[in-house]
Amino acid sequence: MALIESLKQNIQLIEGSGITWPLGFLAAGTHSGLKFKNLDTALIVSDRPAAAAGTFTQNVVVASSVEYSRRLVKAGAARAIFCISGNANACTGEEGEQHTIAKAKMTAQALHLDFNEVLIAATGVIGKPLPIDKLATGIPKAARALKSGPDVDENVGAAMLTTDLRVKQIALTLTSPDFEGEVRIGAVAKGSGMIAPNMATTLCFVTTDAKIDAGVLQTAFSEAIETTFNRITVDGDTSTNDMALILANGASDVAIPASGPAYDLFQEGVHQALEALAKEIARDGEGATKLVEVAVTSAITEDAAKAIAKTVAESPLVKTALFGADPNWGRIVAAAGRAGAPFNPKMLTVKIGHITVFANGMGAPFDKSAASKLLKEKDVKLSIDLAQGDFSATFWTCDFSYDYVRINAEYHT
Amino acid sequence: MALIESLKQNIQLIEGSGITWPLGFLAAGTHSGLKFKNLDTALIVSDRPAAAAGTFTQNVVVASSVEYSRRLVKAGAARAIFCISGNANACTGEEGEQHTIAKAKMTAQALHLDFNEVLIAATGVIGKPLPIDKLATGIPKAARALKSGPDVDENVGAAMLTTDLRVKQIALTLTSPDFEGEVRIGAVAKGSGMIAPNMATTLCFVTTDAKIDAGVLQTAFSEAIETTFNRITVDGDTSTNDMALILANGASDVAIPASGPAYDLFQEGVHQALEALAKEIARDGEGATKLVEVAVTSAITEDAAKAIAKTVAESPLVKTALFGADPNWGRIVAAAGRAGAPFNPKMLTVKIGHITVFANGMGAPFDKSAASKLLKEKDVKLSIDLAQGDFSATFWTCDFSYDYVRINAEYHT
Repeated sequence: MALIESLKQNIQLIEGSGITWPLGFLAAGTHSGLKFKNLDTALIVSDRPAAAAGTFTQNVVVASSVEYSRRLVKAGAARAIFCISGNANACTGEEGEQHTIAKAKMTAQALHLDFNEVLIAATGVIGKPLPIDKLATGIPKAARALKSGPDVDENVGAAMLTTDLRVKQIALTLTSPDFEGEVRIGAVAKGSGMIAPNMATTLCFVTTDAKIDAGVLQTAFSEAIETTFNRITVDGDTSTNDMALILANGASDVAIPASGPAYDLFQEGVHQALEALAKEIARDGEGATKLVEVAVTSAITEDAAKAIAKTVAESPLVKTALFGADPNWGRIVAAAGRAGAPFNPKMLTVKIGHITVFANGMGAPFDKSAASKLLKEKDVKLSIDLAQGDFSATFWTCDFSYDYVRINAEYHT
Repeated sequence: MALIESLKQNIQLIEGSGITWPLGFLAAGTHSGLKFKNLDTALIVSDRPAAAAGTFTQNVVVASSVEYSRRLVKAGAARAIFCISGNANACTGEEGEQHTIAKAKMTAQALHLDFNEVLIAATGVIGKPLPIDKLATGIPKAARALKSGPDVDENVGAAMLTTDLRVKQIALTLTSPDFEGEVRIGAVAKGSGMIAPNMATTLCFVTTDAKIDAGVLQTAFSEAIETTFNRITVDGDTSTNDMALILANGASDVAIPASGPAYDLFQEGVHQALEALAKEIARDGEGATKLVEVAVTSAITEDAAKAIAKTVAESPLVKTALFGADPNWGRIVAAAGRAGAPFNPKMLTVKIGHITVFANGMGAPFDKSAASKLLKEKDVKLSIDLAQGDFSATFWTCDFSYDYVRINAEYHT
């Protein structure tokens, strides 16, 4: 799967690989019985100490795994990520909190690690008691299955899925005249439903064999999350459980400093990996038939650009029109107008793909069947130029189909 | 149709009447050919000068009718409201602006009024040029049809509809020991799609024969709009054309002062009329199968209560669960948590109808089939108690069905 269209010459895409592509990482995707049949248990381990960084949901209501891992990440070091799907272990009270600690303890025991070297993540139904007994056998089973390579990468991705359909992963190799050797990055994500910005917005785990200080890693990671995972939205709903984590174990022996060309390349590599996964998540949103890019340009502030892009990307009226392949610029313009950011409608230009549909305060003459044909493609771009200032923002979303309603009306508690 | 469940003893509901119930008002609902067959032209006229007040969309992109009527309302006086459906005359450039003025001039001429005594409203497709010729015959035709009574009230309501299904109107009579005689209020509204708060949120016209100063009228009307029309939301999309207008012609000879019991009763009457219509609009939202009331109590501020109620009411995940009659409190709690208002999840109580589904930071034990049965009714209430402070807010919305997607994917430009 060619996730990225244009990579920088120093960044090489490794087809078919993922989370264990970087040196010194092992993983497993196994079945503990939380789901009926599908893989439900993912384990990612570094064979040596690693720097850790992360971003977490901004929801007021958070799962104990979020509270737990957020605390651990502050220390800047971890060796393992343990993740289950099928049960969010959220809103499960004190027993749920105890279960999160129990998972960390059991994982540490199976891996002969310290208890506070294990990050915990979970996704699935909220409020269902966690059958911790199943993990008492499931965790040692996952630990025994640890290995590296494309097969296990795919299994890890599969073990994180809930209602999403496809494994979302990527592997990159960075080379540069600015350092000896190469740096590898692997990443895997889980999306679908409850995808919205202002946090990690889903589960995403990244590994790298770069040698990097935890503080620098956090900066690079946060920067990349801000313009990728924080710019995708399916329905505006954010989850209690979302987090994005990165482990950097230094196995490449390539040191990444706090600034300069080597840092820039590393940051760009992390950014490219996250952008590719973020777009795949939007494309794989519940009931989605297409990936929609909403690009706002020439805004007076970045906040204004973001507000307008987000409002258009989340508008149910725009999203149903996109599903219907209807070049309904009126809904786009009306959504932009209610974003809370002032602009002059008479200066506004709206394009569907390369076709200008709105200019000078009114609909532009355009070929409706050509615009409708563009809207039937798998990749749709809406451009909104405010002709005001120098700030831009891009959001990614999907259309809103009958299947969105079906999936979410039928996915019962 | 019993719109209101409990009226104060001084407020009497007049079944089957609407906009011409107050003395001195005439109206017509006719066909000018903007729609193929259905009524598309509404005209409301006072037989004497009237005080006028109004609220308007907060969208940055507004139709020329909004700019025009907003300017006129500031003067505090008007005699007529001319409204078309089927064509929003929005984003139609300078020609559209000229058409708005032409409509006011033609209406004034047909009614022998001053040009600036005619308020203009429109609803329908954005960006379509207005066939003004049709109104050159349509306006005199409407003027000739002016009369009062239940038949014409129904026609006016029908002439304002686009994708909504039912005429929404109400008529009330106020009596009080605090004044001689009675005051009548009539109201009609049009909703469906693009219904969201922070403005008039739809078209709503109110008539009354109270004798009241325009400034006092504006205060009473704005107060009533704030807790009714600004608290309904179907999909968060606000329109370029929304407005709510009130005309008070004094034909009852009952003077309403700026404060005191007579003012309070008048304000309550306007509030009751608007609340009834607002709830009917939510119930009649595109594809809606039920009216959903989201009541947030014990918040630390009113803004916090409003933000949480609005976020829950707009959450596509909550709304699809309501369509599926699924008591999925996890989605309600998660939506509340992302509203941007801090609260302690462990203090939170969530109820579906009278059934507590969430308390003490976790799911409460409850009878799922009983809760699901409540969710299948035509009126559903979600209660969210934050146990923090003294502020409350209620929003009304509807569920999110297959038909929402169908209507909005198929309603082509």
